[in-house]
Amino acid sequence: MYDLIIIGMGPGGYEASLTALRKGLNIAIVEKDKLGGNCLNRACIPTKYLRTGAHLIQKLKDFHKYGINIDSLSVDYSTAWKYKEETIKFLRKSLLNLLKSKKVPLYKGEGVIIDKNKVLIKKNDGSEEILEGKHIIISTGSIPSSLGNIHPDGKFVITTEDYMDKLQTLPKTMLVVGGGVSGCELSYIMAKYGVKVYVVELKDRILDTDIISPEISKFIHRKLKNLGVDIFLGTTIKEYKVEDGKVLVSLSNGENLEVDKILLSVGRKPNSLVDEIDIEKDERGFIKVNPYLQTNYENIFAVGDVINSPMLAHVAQYEAKIAMHNILNPDSKISVDYSLIPFAIFSVLEIASVGENEITAQKKGIDVETGYFPFMYNEKAVDEIENEGFVRLIFDKNTQRLIGGYIVGIGASELIHEISLMVKSKFTAKQVHEFIYFHPSLSEIFAYASYDTAIGKLF
Amino acid sequence: MYDLIIIGMGPGGYEASLTALRKGLNIAIVEKDKLGGNCLNRACIPTKYLRTGAHLIQKLKDFHKYGINIDSLSVDYSTAWKYKEETIKFLRKSLLNLLKSKKVPLYKGEGVIIDKNKVLIKKNDGSEEILEGKHIIISTGSIPSSLGNIHPDGKFVITTEDYMDKLQTLPKTMLVVGGGVSGCELSYIMAKYGVKVYVVELKDRILDTDIISPEISKFIHRKLKNLGVDIFLGTTIKEYKVEDGKVLVSLSNGENLEVDKILLSVGRKPNSLVDEIDIEKDERGFIKVNPYLQTNYENIFAVGDVINSPMLAHVAQYEAKIAMHNILNPDSKISVDYSLIPFAIFSVLEIASVGENEITAQKKGIDVETGYFPFMYNEKAVDEIENEGFVRLIFDKNTQRLIGGYIVGIGASELIHEISLMVKSKFTAKQVHEFIYFHPSLSEIFAYASYDTAIGKLF
Repeated sequence: MYDLIIIGMGPGGYEASLTALRKGLNIAIVEKDKLGGNCLNRACIPTKYLRTGAHLIQKLKDFHKYGINIDSLSVDYSTAWKYKEETIKFLRKSLLNLLKSKKVPLYKGEGVIIDKNKVLIKKNDGSEEILEGKHIIISTGSIPSSLGNIHPDGKFVITTEDYMDKLQTLPKTMLVVGGGVSGCELSYIMAKYGVKVYVVELKDRILDTDIISPEISKFIHRKLKNLGVDIFLGTTIKEYKVEDGKVLVSLSNGENLEVDKILLSVGRKPNSLVDEIDIEKDERGFIKVNPYLQTNYENIFAVGDVINSPMLAHVAQYEAKIAMHNILNPDSKISVDYSLIPFAIFSVLEIASVGENEITAQKKGIDVETGYFPFMYNEKAVDEIENEGFVRLIFDKNTQRLIGGYIVGIGASELIHEISLMVKSKFTAKQVHEFIYFHPSLSEIFAYASYDTAIGKLF
Repeated sequence: MYDLIIIGMGPGGYEASLTALRKGLNIAIVEKDKLGGNCLNRACIPTKYLRTGAHLIQKLKDFHKYGINIDSLSVDYSTAWKYKEETIKFLRKSLLNLLKSKKVPLYKGEGVIIDKNKVLIKKNDGSEEILEGKHIIISTGSIPSSLGNIHPDGKFVITTEDYMDKLQTLPKTMLVVGGGVSGCELSYIMAKYGVKVYVVELKDRILDTDIISPEISKFIHRKLKNLGVDIFLGTTIKEYKVEDGKVLVSLSNGENLEVDKILLSVGRKPNSLVDEIDIEKDERGFIKVNPYLQTNYENIFAVGDVINSPMLAHVAQYEAKIAMHNILNPDSKISVDYSLIPFAIFSVLEIASVGENEITAQKKGIDVETGYFPFMYNEKAVDEIENEGFVRLIFDKNTQRLIGGYIVGIGASELIHEISLMVKSKFTAKQVHEFIYFHPSLSEIFAYASYDTAIGKLF
């Protein structure tokens, strides 16, 4: 009997296995697809690879200001795609080598929990095997959602997974359905690699979620538009048909578009068909867990996209750490705490947010005072010629403590952790202001964005 | 009578003026040279501008992996130099506009303190004027040090200030004297813009200071060498002469070099000849201050390079904040605290350090345990094809608390603040490990570098 069976080797499963191995547990891993899950193979990692390329293309226009004169240039997406594959292969291989070096059995197939201590493996080669484990972690992730009237066919209508797995050359025109995170990220990549992109978004702003301030949506909308991306808000696809190798689309706003492909980017749903023992799920299919991440069987835990928490790789990793702590320390279990989850998006500019913003604070009845500073006057951003964007810090008006913030612009996805750490440590505006940041650094935006609250207004 | 007279408008003076204006003080500023001081005009800001260019040149070799094919390219330092000037002009102008909009009198000339409340301005136009102030802040900075036997002539032997102010085109060959911060930064810039660079360093490692671990010196030495920079350790210039437009140099190790120029980069000394009232100085010329940054006159404060604290722009800014607090709150003064000053260097790779390292900890009798993680396995660094370098975290072995750390590689100068914040908040290894970092982000190196100490070793 294994100490632990992990079903699904994405970020959650990977993190759990690392901790288990360090603690000397005897583990088995079940994975029906590639190691690394959706994150490594079709989402976070390849997206950021291609976004790095897109952003370098964007930066080329300023290279002459550093005396770098490019006389002749061509851009070829398929090469980027090929190296994107190399990159994720390298990372997958590292993962595999680690498991091999620790002699961890890796079962390639689907795992079905048939008893609270038994997992039936329906192997990819057709055979079956039953494993026994004291504990089980379900980290089976999620799959793309669909829309009622739009049917992915892998050719004219594709999912974000199809995009990463198969789309080795880009079409001339693309209609992206959904102006959420993936929609905004892939639109930027395609736009910089030469695609004419259209985005339809049901809601009245892109990135329409409480954790993204409308100020950000507006800013990014304008920047995408400047790049030539046409965005239709409050709009849906009424109908579409394929004709002569083109997709003809009628939008709810009366406009008609002719595009090469439709990219469906409308979120994801839990991949929770993993058991025959009535593990409890909610009405949307998420596996129900208690604050210790236990399912209705106390030895079976679930982490990541398959439970109803933010669908983010680092949330899965965090949950895996908490689940492992609780497996290892049944008498001193700890609860999950989702109060400080950093969130980042890589579009025209980097976007990141953590803790409260004006909207979430208002909903909780907290009076806020905000501090703003644009990258335009940050010397490091100016030196890098990446001086667009801003930071906004959110302070509790009564206590002057930092309770959250967001950043649009260079380095946002790293700088956000400084806000996160300062919120965690209950910094006041004055502490944020007087903390010593290297000069010149992007981090200095925090000293300036806290000036008004900490010291007083300049104007 | 002014509330405050600030002598010297570098980072310290600038920061003091910002706080003073926000508090409604009536201030006057004295500056004999350009606004922004050495930092803005000849050091931090232009160096980072040119380093950005150098690093983009370095990155060009990987552009094809993003499908960006550059067929024909030329590199021209003088254009970079020109735009560097534009950049610092823009920032200087922002500063000037701020002072103008607040109607702050700006006296262009040298300030000499002739009485505890009086500053004589020897104006650049030859005239003189006496200002009266309740308080005075001396923030007059520093000037380049010289070596006994090497005499800058602005042509064959230049200082780092000459380099930034005047060197619009680069020579074919350069001998850099001093392998400290400026030496390592300028060597990288010159090497990438096509100069054959030699470095002589008296000590037996480059970056030889307690706050830089020898592990870093060794790593950067090897990287510079790979770029074609020849470094002579434990070596000095025995003699040199100019002949036929070349500098012929004999080194103490017996080697002879023929170079176009010598760049003297051997540190800086305080610019403290600012008074006729016996403000106390130490034997090296630094103005003496108490922990509240007061000189021997309680209404006269000194901040920045002119006092004996780390010669860094952000230390000057921090000191200016403390001095201003003490001017504004004479009954609740606060002391300076130099325990968490981030330090960063922009050479072949970024380098940053904060708090204790193995050496400083040992000197204080602290037993340490260290955590290491290379960027090679950080997905974000891999996506950016900037996967060289590493982080090392320093934990107190007894308490498992983080007490410092250093980073070599992408983003080091920003990521260092996360270490700084975690040290300040007394994070244990387990807290560093379980903190939620965005995935994929460079910041995740902290979760992995703390794994061994927090959870246990993998091998």
